[in-house]
Amino acid sequence: MDEWWKEACQPLDAVMRERALARQDQLTKPRGALGRLEALAVQLAALQGCERPQVERVHVSVFAGDHGVVEEGVSAFPQAVTGQMLRNFVGGGAALAVLARRLGSALEVIDLGTVEPLHLAGVSHLRLGPGTANFTREAAMSDQQLQQALGAGRDTARRAAAGAAQLFIGGEMGIGNTTCASALAAALLPHSPLTLVGPGTGLDGDGVRRKLAAVQTALRLHADHCAGPLETLRRLGGFEVAALAGAYLGCAQQGIPVLVDGFICSAAALCAVRLNPTCRPWLLFAHRSAEPGHLAVLQALEAEPLLDLGLRLGEGSGAALAVPLLQQACALHNEMATFAEAAVAEGAV
Amino acid sequence: MDEWWKEACQPLDAVMRERALARQDQLTKPRGALGRLEALAVQLAALQGCERPQVERVHVSVFAGDHGVVEEGVSAFPQAVTGQMLRNFVGGGAALAVLARRLGSALEVIDLGTVEPLHLAGVSHLRLGPGTANFTREAAMSDQQLQQALGAGRDTARRAAAGAAQLFIGGEMGIGNTTCASALAAALLPHSPLTLVGPGTGLDGDGVRRKLAAVQTALRLHADHCAGPLETLRRLGGFEVAALAGAYLGCAQQGIPVLVDGFICSAAALCAVRLNPTCRPWLLFAHRSAEPGHLAVLQALEAEPLLDLGLRLGEGSGAALAVPLLQQACALHNEMATFAEAAVAEGAV
Repeated sequence: MDEWWKEACQPLDAVMRERALARQDQLTKPRGALGRLEALAVQLAALQGCERPQVERVHVSVFAGDHGVVEEGVSAFPQAVTGQMLRNFVGGGAALAVLARRLGSALEVIDLGTVEPLHLAGVSHLRLGPGTANFTREAAMSDQQLQQALGAGRDTARRAAAGAAQLFIGGEMGIGNTTCASALAAALLPHSPLTLVGPGTGLDGDGVRRKLAAVQTALRLHADHCAGPLETLRRLGGFEVAALAGAYLGCAQQGIPVLVDGFICSAAALCAVRLNPTCRPWLLFAHRSAEPGHLAVLQALEAEPLLDLGLRLGEGSGAALAVPLLQQACALHNEMATFAEAAVAEGAV
Repeated sequence: MDEWWKEACQPLDAVMRERALARQDQLTKPRGALGRLEALAVQLAALQGCERPQVERVHVSVFAGDHGVVEEGVSAFPQAVTGQMLRNFVGGGAALAVLARRLGSALEVIDLGTVEPLHLAGVSHLRLGPGTANFTREAAMSDQQLQQALGAGRDTARRAAAGAAQLFIGGEMGIGNTTCASALAAALLPHSPLTLVGPGTGLDGDGVRRKLAAVQTALRLHADHCAGPLETLRRLGGFEVAALAGAYLGCAQQGIPVLVDGFICSAAALCAVRLNPTCRPWLLFAHRSAEPGHLAVLQALEAEPLLDLGLRLGEGSGAALAVPLLQQACALHNEMATFAEAAVAEGAV
């Protein structure tokens, strides 16, 4: 087995980090007055290896896949919506499609396997299977499917690198995938499923109870066999979640900063960090989702997201919404005058 | 005295609000999944009187003025910085100038009165006086200066309306103006100055104690004479703060939504709302500043800002940073497909 994901990720550029820090200290503002945007610009400088980072070319990909666990009644939407939304992504009417357009980015749509086979222009149909298996009864994926899903993510990262992307956003679509993310979080973190399972796209109380039961059943079935993150991902993951983890790892190996979206994407990021901790510095976190499990995953990753707007859409939409903050942080860092340039007196009278 | 600010502000459009709400319910996402961005789009629809609001034309103005209270040692920066920063605004090197450029907005720079007279190309020099008087000893402004400052704000709102602005952002520059904002907040709210006074641009502990003493002295001198918000603003305000209040009131009368920046701007918004409560629905709040007094003012206004990034720069920079969120909220509202358009099944299986 080619364990490509274990290869070291790119190191950060310490020299550019120092230069960017020194530049921040010279800009015409009180020190620290731009709050988190200052550290963000400095981190991007270290990641991109240049004193004046930029986030104008954003590679946006959305990964879709169906989930066998949906037969347990864990979603408010019918499973056909996964495929219907693929059409909506390429048609430009989905939230992420609208936001990608505003960023001037093409939206890459990758179908890893829906229940019903689809043939849509503009979608890359990889078709690893008719969705994953129901993980309350068996492993979600075979070894081969997991390898293919991770590899699909890496291929995306390579395309992003070939396009000289300055940032990568991965999105996801898969009816049932908050159940999958909850199961992964419960297996990888010291938290009870009770604190991780939430309403997802809008389940009622009975639905949440079914979802919790499904996660508990899956943990009982698989926990003793989850020797490491790879096997946990194979047993409890989804095609699109594994592809996201592969994309994050690939981006970190290629030297492309990543902006992680909400609960599903953060669960994929958790898997990526467990598979190869050297990817962690490449992951920025966009927002704190309304889904309860997200907080636990963010805390485990020591992630401080930029936005907190009660979003719970997924698709990568929260990440796309936060891109302008990164762009503005860079613009301020790159374009503000220094005290010397502007002949403005520094502080401490 | 022409009390123009008491004239009624524009009513909200209830029909367009209902239509926008109905549209939100039809977009291809779980209901409520876009969190606060949904209510934001609906509010903008009601304010702009159209089902599909837009925030592409943003009028950005920055008001500057000096403060007599600076002689009490209440700022980390020398008073000359107010004038130096005026040059930096028109030169394009100040934070707000960088952000306005990204928004495609011209930056209107209005000097209401610096200690030393300035003549800068690109700055509108209104020169109401060589800064305000030291409010620890006397009223900050004369009746005439207050009227002129409020009027300068209204004139700005009229120019914004003439340019068909879809949003107004007001910024401020004035060494010493967090002391002024703290004094206004202490006079208008049931809070002790102890909880309102903070480090501003970066005061040390001694500086904060001097600032607190200045606010306490001012309150002892003026409190019994602050019969209403107008007199409070005259005695404890600043030229730029009064101009901001006038601009907010003028925008609400002209029907232009306002995005309020941090502590100084929110203190001006508090004055505006006390002068004419019908302006309140026109005020959106951009961010929660790191300055402690801001929280109290936001609570008094029942304002829920969009961002919380530890910003404490002022200038209007936090408001400019939040504009893309408004634009994206509108784009999602206007451009997402409905369930019918995209042939996507609605929830509740």
